Amino acid sequence: MTHSFRKARETDLIDIIRLLADDDIGQGREFVTDPIDQRYQTAFAAIDADENQLLVVAVDQKDHVIGCLQLSFIPGLSRTGTWRGQIESVRIAREARGSGLGTAFIEWAVETCRARGCKIVQLTSDKSRTDSIRFYEKLGFTASHEGLKRSL
Amino acid sequence: MTHSFRKARETDLIDIIRLLADDDIGQGREFVTDPIDQRYQTAFAAIDADENQLLVVAVDQKDHVIGCLQLSFIPGLSRTGTWRGQIESVRIAREARGSGLGTAFIEWAVETCRARGCKIVQLTSDKSRTDSIRFYEKLGFTASHEGLKRSL
Repeated sequence: MTHSFRKARETDLIDIIRLLADDDIGQGREFVTDPIDQRYQTAFAAIDADENQLLVVAVDQKDHVIGCLQLSFIPGLSRTGTWRGQIESVRIAREARGSGLGTAFIEWAVETCRARGCKIVQLTSDKSRTDSIRFYEKLGFTASHEGLKRSL
Repeated sequence: MTHSFRKARETDLIDIIRLLADDDIGQGREFVTDPIDQRYQTAFAAIDADENQLLVVAVDQKDHVIGCLQLSFIPGLSRTGTWRGQIESVRIAREARGSGLGTAFIEWAVETCRARGCKIVQLTSDKSRTDSIRFYEKLGFTASHEGLKRSL
């Protein structure tokens, strides 16, 4: 399957929301509606306006969206003033799973972080996503940290 | 011990670096020098220029720095366009530990995230920091995720 990666456009939004919703954990907390829920449009605008956020889609040769992820570039003082790249909301369309797209997508994301000067790339994965965790470990990530969350 | 929390100023930078360095894990990767390593100054400027980053110090009644942390406010599409607050690089000065400062500092950080419209607050903690992890769990955080890191 031929694919490429590009910055998401507002016209991709409905496809991205469908990907976020088509997920065992995500399906209960996303709303796929026409027209698109205003909260997604507001969030897209905030991401798009922030030069340290990069929402990316993977597309097939017909420019159909088959994956998405968000990169956050975070400046920090720790580790002698190191920038961190953070990967969030990774989804691969069902029909594209097992094709190597996920590996290519994460490697592309890591290289994008490197090109932005990041010295570390980080992400969290729900502990119930055991396949995902193994996938990231194969790609050189180490599960060295607890990922702690508190809902407000 | 009376304390307050305020946005960090450039004149706090050496105290913050000392706090980052005075740590079992951090001591090997920070450089406390006079003058301050240029990389910290560059990182401070990047944090200060980014309205979605907030570097905060805890100070005593004489305005001496006794703690630090960084907040990142991250817009995202997941969870119906939810903003996340992320807490990073939390340090409490040795002389201030056990005083309740850490609890007050994290609660202040959580309320700051809430005031910015975040619906979730997240952080990662090295698995070897078992006391820290218990501390965050007592404050309502759940260690639901693996925190995966890859150095570049």
